[in-house]
Amino acid sequence: MKLYHMDFEPVGRRGQCQDNESLLDCARRLGVGIISLCGGQGTCHCCKVRVLSGTVSEPTSSEQEVFSPQELQDGWRLACQTYPISDGKVSVPAESVTTPQRIQVEGLEITVHPEPPVRAYHLQLPTPSLSHPQADADRLLQALNQQYQLGCSQVDIDVLRILSPRLRSWNWQCQATVRNDEVVAVSPYPSRQLGLAVDLGTTKIAGYLVDLSRGQTLAAKGIMNPQISYGEDIISRITTVTKSPAEGVQLQKLAVEALNELAGDLCAEVGADTEEIVEAVVVGNTAMHHLFLRLPVRQLAYSPFVPAVSQALDIKARDLGLHMASGAYGHILPNIAGFVGADHVAMLLATEVGQAKGLILALDIGTNTEVSLVNNGEITTVSCASGPAFEGGHIKDGMRAASGAIERLRIATDGIQYQTIDGVPPVGICGSGILDAMAQLYLAGTVDHHGRMKDNHPHLRTDQKQRQFVLVSEEERDGNPAIVITQQDIRELQLAKAAIRTGIQVLLETNGGSEEEIEQVIIAGAFGSYINVSSAITIGMLPSLPLDRFRQVGNAAGMGAKLALISSSKRSQAQDIASRVHYLELATAPNFMSTFSQASYLGRYRLRQGKRREID
Amino acid sequence: MKLYHMDFEPVGRRGQCQDNESLLDCARRLGVGIISLCGGQGTCHCCKVRVLSGTVSEPTSSEQEVFSPQELQDGWRLACQTYPISDGKVSVPAESVTTPQRIQVEGLEITVHPEPPVRAYHLQLPTPSLSHPQADADRLLQALNQQYQLGCSQVDIDVLRILSPRLRSWNWQCQATVRNDEVVAVSPYPSRQLGLAVDLGTTKIAGYLVDLSRGQTLAAKGIMNPQISYGEDIISRITTVTKSPAEGVQLQKLAVEALNELAGDLCAEVGADTEEIVEAVVVGNTAMHHLFLRLPVRQLAYSPFVPAVSQALDIKARDLGLHMASGAYGHILPNIAGFVGADHVAMLLATEVGQAKGLILALDIGTNTEVSLVNNGEITTVSCASGPAFEGGHIKDGMRAASGAIERLRIATDGIQYQTIDGVPPVGICGSGILDAMAQLYLAGTVDHHGRMKDNHPHLRTDQKQRQFVLVSEEERDGNPAIVITQQDIRELQLAKAAIRTGIQVLLETNGGSEEEIEQVIIAGAFGSYINVSSAITIGMLPSLPLDRFRQVGNAAGMGAKLALISSSKRSQAQDIASRVHYLELATAPNFMSTFSQASYLGRYRLRQGKRREID
Repeated sequence: MKLYHMDFEPVGRRGQCQDNESLLDCARRLGVGIISLCGGQGTCHCCKVRVLSGTVSEPTSSEQEVFSPQELQDGWRLACQTYPISDGKVSVPAESVTTPQRIQVEGLEITVHPEPPVRAYHLQLPTPSLSHPQADADRLLQALNQQYQLGCSQVDIDVLRILSPRLRSWNWQCQATVRNDEVVAVSPYPSRQLGLAVDLGTTKIAGYLVDLSRGQTLAAKGIMNPQISYGEDIISRITTVTKSPAEGVQLQKLAVEALNELAGDLCAEVGADTEEIVEAVVVGNTAMHHLFLRLPVRQLAYSPFVPAVSQALDIKARDLGLHMASGAYGHILPNIAGFVGADHVAMLLATEVGQAKGLILALDIGTNTEVSLVNNGEITTVSCASGPAFEGGHIKDGMRAASGAIERLRIATDGIQYQTIDGVPPVGICGSGILDAMAQLYLAGTVDHHGRMKDNHPHLRTDQKQRQFVLVSEEERDGNPAIVITQQDIRELQLAKAAIRTGIQVLLETNGGSEEEIEQVIIAGAFGSYINVSSAITIGMLPSLPLDRFRQVGNAAGMGAKLALISSSKRSQAQDIASRVHYLELATAPNFMSTFSQASYLGRYRLRQGKRREID
Repeated sequence: MKLYHMDFEPVGRRGQCQDNESLLDCARRLGVGIISLCGGQGTCHCCKVRVLSGTVSEPTSSEQEVFSPQELQDGWRLACQTYPISDGKVSVPAESVTTPQRIQVEGLEITVHPEPPVRAYHLQLPTPSLSHPQADADRLLQALNQQYQLGCSQVDIDVLRILSPRLRSWNWQCQATVRNDEVVAVSPYPSRQLGLAVDLGTTKIAGYLVDLSRGQTLAAKGIMNPQISYGEDIISRITTVTKSPAEGVQLQKLAVEALNELAGDLCAEVGADTEEIVEAVVVGNTAMHHLFLRLPVRQLAYSPFVPAVSQALDIKARDLGLHMASGAYGHILPNIAGFVGADHVAMLLATEVGQAKGLILALDIGTNTEVSLVNNGEITTVSCASGPAFEGGHIKDGMRAASGAIERLRIATDGIQYQTIDGVPPVGICGSGILDAMAQLYLAGTVDHHGRMKDNHPHLRTDQKQRQFVLVSEEERDGNPAIVITQQDIRELQLAKAAIRTGIQVLLETNGGSEEEIEQVIIAGAFGSYINVSSAITIGMLPSLPLDRFRQVGNAAGMGAKLALISSSKRSQAQDIASRVHYLELATAPNFMSTFSQASYLGRYRLRQGKRREID
């Protein structure tokens, strides 16, 4: 019997698979819920997966029935019929998964006066005659400018292509949607004016359908980013695209198709058509921004990490492949730097930190963590390479925040108490759970402030020359492998949290502030909203401050995108924020190395000029 | 359904033909360009072919009208009315073939100071570093605005998609092409800035490749408009598209492909790449304009004949399907009305009539004839339905100006003298030849001023109850059918010339001018440059004025397109001309019917308020 390492995406659950164990059995054992109705006979065809890498057994006759040769070529298989022959990576599509991934779409709600950059105007046009045979588009523009005192000078070519027959079928009454000096859509009167706001994350995509005239969110939905099959983190996607430009086209296509599907779902929820969407705002980190726009990414990955473009962009939806109103635009918020993207700008916009007084810290924690320090409106930003640990990556039993993931954890005297997502039996541990585990182990004295595991707890054991702390034992899991935290896991998390703490410290030192002076710490993003802030303080990831100074604001990037969709002045504010930000390259900061080494210590402490002072 | 093998000679094209497919459709499908003006209705009589072997369907009534029993016996048929019943061989005579054709690209040359709407700027950018990691596009814009005091604010998305790798491979030195506030192309330094001017005619397309910085024409070429296979006149194309929108897509595709090919050929001539073309200007009549832009055309064909759009348009080349520099635009000159297009605006621009003193008449003669009367800069324009006679349509032995067409003709005492295109034996008669023939017959007294053929000339004979005048006899053509002018041909030409003369007269009456006061008559267009003006005066198509008041200016529309390409102020002049023109619907003019009836008389005369006064 041989053991192979399998990686199930997009949940990110990894583990050993025996050569006589089907991918279905392996996935289930690792807690990845794949649908199967026939008990693994290959007859229900529910357990479709796609083998992304590695070698597996030859397709069986039932698989040859289900899949075309091209699909088989592309790696599509039935999990119950497929056995590994090497290490590998398998993508489990949404339709094959029993429980979806938790994707946060909620965030702080800010009410703004709607002043959308696109507006609809009602028109009743005079019917043309032999004595007034003015062209249809010219007639429309003249009426708009005269009746509403606009300076509208052009009609989008795709609107021109439908205008004449539609005006006639609507009996010369219509609603014209105007953006700056251009008519971007025509619709019967009255029609809704819908907008789409999108937070395009590396892992997840959140979409919001908004009524533009009332500034109201009509529907919200989160989906997984299908690009994940080309690499979980942005660096592996950039590498893929750099090697083969064709893959860049493919990656863009995946993102665009996902957005079109998302828009379709959101519209279906409120009985609308995607043609009613007259404007979209998209935010994402710089790499996602570039991949979505099919911009070159090579220069993002190498020093000095330069974006192809930073300023805000207005691009015709058709040039992006988005299905919306004929002449609609996608507005892409500005980036700040190679690793500080439009999503961070959107977060700064939504949290209104630019207008606040005092010293504010704003973080978006993820594989890459962006941290801004705002000092009476002056913004300095760094990017910290926090790595995949918070997404469950590089953690032995780590996984993303899906059903069965341990998300909260407490080491009590009588055992381990934990809470899983959806309350089902545990299958792994996600970011917030790992953070809790580390804090609890530190508080229990089982891990010291250097991050070393001691041998002073009954749950500790050694496996493959490595210490590990058992959170859920084999017995508790009915013979399935235990869920553990290893010494290596602690090291991974230490690197991640040190990167963030270093970023905070460098910002403070550059601005001449101290930790105690921080009046507010804003934590944005899905991971940030689920973490126990006390745990983050306990391990020294965040400065030790009274808990009431922390604000977990959820998907603030999505909220920022919505604001830029609804309000022209919020949109210009975003551009203003991006151009005002002072971006600091962390690696070039003085004391960077000594600060980083001090920041990797566990415990509550203050940092000052590369020195650490314990608290308590 | 049965399949037969058909052989089309002399091109030697062979292929399968279905028994329910006409020879016309089969030939076209096989790539043999047979002329058809009526869209296969059997009424234009252009698609004459000769069945050399095999069995075909019985002659239809329209064929019995066109051909004598002998001709039918000899295998002469209309391809659109004939269906195969066995394998066979068909001869397509030169006069039924769409190519080759004489296409005029020359026209008057006007020298203007080049002030192109797109300009190139040379830049040497600072290399990015960790301390200056500005985005590539932002760096480019900043350099442009600072070094050249521009207000450039955006970079086209397709330029963004190539910018980063190119800047690096060019070592940060480049040439940026700017249009208004947008970078539409980047190229290595130094590069040429090429422009493309196109006169998109119903029958022919003329293209000019221009060096924008020097305002110099580098190459010129004319090709046939491939849309001709969907009907030779615009009305049959509009009908086709109105019936099936898919055909609209196909028609646009044909025009765009032709333009791309033309651009490719022009570039090849000067060793350039189409990517070096940074701007295109396209002019055409309103229907061609709409078909090229894939705009709806139905409303053009029905009263009150309204264009979808009249104002000038700036459309991304990619949205039109044109292969040019990444972010380049096509500029489409404005239309005036449903039957007065951008080509007429271009002609008015090129002839500078708007700035001239006195009374000027400017005509563009074709299937549709546009006539402008310019009175000290005030322009009034009418459109005359002159029909296809000048293109050889509806004329028994008519053909377009292709090899073997009689283009000049004189009836001498000792016989007929004629000149053919390319000096080859005659195969038919084209517009200028028909005009000469009519004038000569009138001068010889063989046709009276009512247009009636008398029986007083040895060349006259009667065939199928119709008088005809033999220009080239069967004997002279080695047994091939004679080339004749029939009574019906005279009637067709009378309608055409009456339409034009009526237009002129209505314009004069509306403006309170008289024929004698016209100081200059400008005749534009290919047909207009080849006609004998004396003949046109003799038959009463043009007013009787001293010959030195006439100017035949060739392809002035193409020249106008070039001017609008080279010069921003010429471009705004064109918009100014279009908006200043007073368009007059001919049918609504008082005295229209009586003027028309007087205008159909042959001879030199003056018209005034629906009355005719003979001269001489």
